[in-house]
Amino acid sequence: MKYIKDPLKIEEKSFEIIKSNIKREFTLDEIPVVLRAIHSTGDYDYENIIRFKNKPVNVGIETIRGGTKVFTDTKMALSGINKKSLLITESSIHCYIDEEKIYEISRLKKITRSMAAIDKAVEDGTEVFVIGNAPTALFRLCEYIEKGIILPKLIIGVPVGFVGAEESKEILYKLDVPSITTKGTKGGSNVAAAIFNAILYMAVGR
Amino acid sequence: MKYIKDPLKIEEKSFEIIKSNIKREFTLDEIPVVLRAIHSTGDYDYENIIRFKNKPVNVGIETIRGGTKVFTDTKMALSGINKKSLLITESSIHCYIDEEKIYEISRLKKITRSMAAIDKAVEDGTEVFVIGNAPTALFRLCEYIEKGIILPKLIIGVPVGFVGAEESKEILYKLDVPSITTKGTKGGSNVAAAIFNAILYMAVGR
Repeated sequence: MKYIKDPLKIEEKSFEIIKSNIKREFTLDEIPVVLRAIHSTGDYDYENIIRFKNKPVNVGIETIRGGTKVFTDTKMALSGINKKSLLITESSIHCYIDEEKIYEISRLKKITRSMAAIDKAVEDGTEVFVIGNAPTALFRLCEYIEKGIILPKLIIGVPVGFVGAEESKEILYKLDVPSITTKGTKGGSNVAAAIFNAILYMAVGR
Repeated sequence: MKYIKDPLKIEEKSFEIIKSNIKREFTLDEIPVVLRAIHSTGDYDYENIIRFKNKPVNVGIETIRGGTKVFTDTKMALSGINKKSLLITESSIHCYIDEEKIYEISRLKKITRSMAAIDKAVEDGTEVFVIGNAPTALFRLCEYIEKGIILPKLIIGVPVGFVGAEESKEILYKLDVPSITTKGTKGGSNVAAAIFNAILYMAVGR
């Protein structure tokens, strides 16, 4: 069998193909984000459904570069995020979903573990949120923002699914906060990690 | 804000919605696989592009239940797979991609780490393969099957992307081996994990 075996060449060629096929106009800093969202799903529809609000990419690059706390809702997004590149910055990534304390609080308060994890991230002064799975996490975060309790620097909010995902993203999009989100049901932890990595790579000049 | 906060209710309602919207006919054992693929991506297109060959779900349920070695190509798929449910069976899951030895071999042989990881899995007598990301891993595995070196019980082969992904899945689909794959560019580690979990849940009667 003949196939390309060089990972860098595969990635390079993939981005060329995607780039030559997207039709919508994006700003220079948005393009890598769109490319990586499509690259991680094989789905060109992301060029239509992705939404940028309040210059999220520029703000994200500066914030990550300067060193910040990044929260993510799932271990899957956590494993998709490039930790080697993150180490170059002074930023750190946190996922609380599997902590015993989070289980306890969610049982006690009768909320999802994703919501309890957001509570902890807010208490911890997190500035960047990467939410790829749980609508309840994004709803909770939006509540805190609406109440003026927190003003994140960047929210990557792309929960996936058919119950609450779309609604939670609509609420996020209306908030006066830098965000990257998608219209409709599509999204996921892989998409969240891909979008975050795109910004991270720009931050470290990769 | 009003939203459902019970994770089980969210999942249940999601599956109801998806079920009422899919149009293609599937066998009873295939339906949970299709539902979870759509659930993990928010993308109904999976009902059109998913392909089942040689009764993969039935074979998969029996094999996992009986205790087997499962390989996956990425840490992302690994974190998406339900380890608690897997513990109920006597099966184990393995991901070699980050092992120092795999780095070494890939440098020495000038192959991708994904290919080196497949080599190790084949040597280890792996029976179930869950490949969500790397076309080179799936190409390599198909080569071993064509040469008669290995005959897996189940391959979940859903690499994503624009360079080799589609071709690798076409080759897999032609092989006389139980497989679940997708037509075209779509796929990913999240999809691979979702498909595996669907079979796993049936194996443990969840």
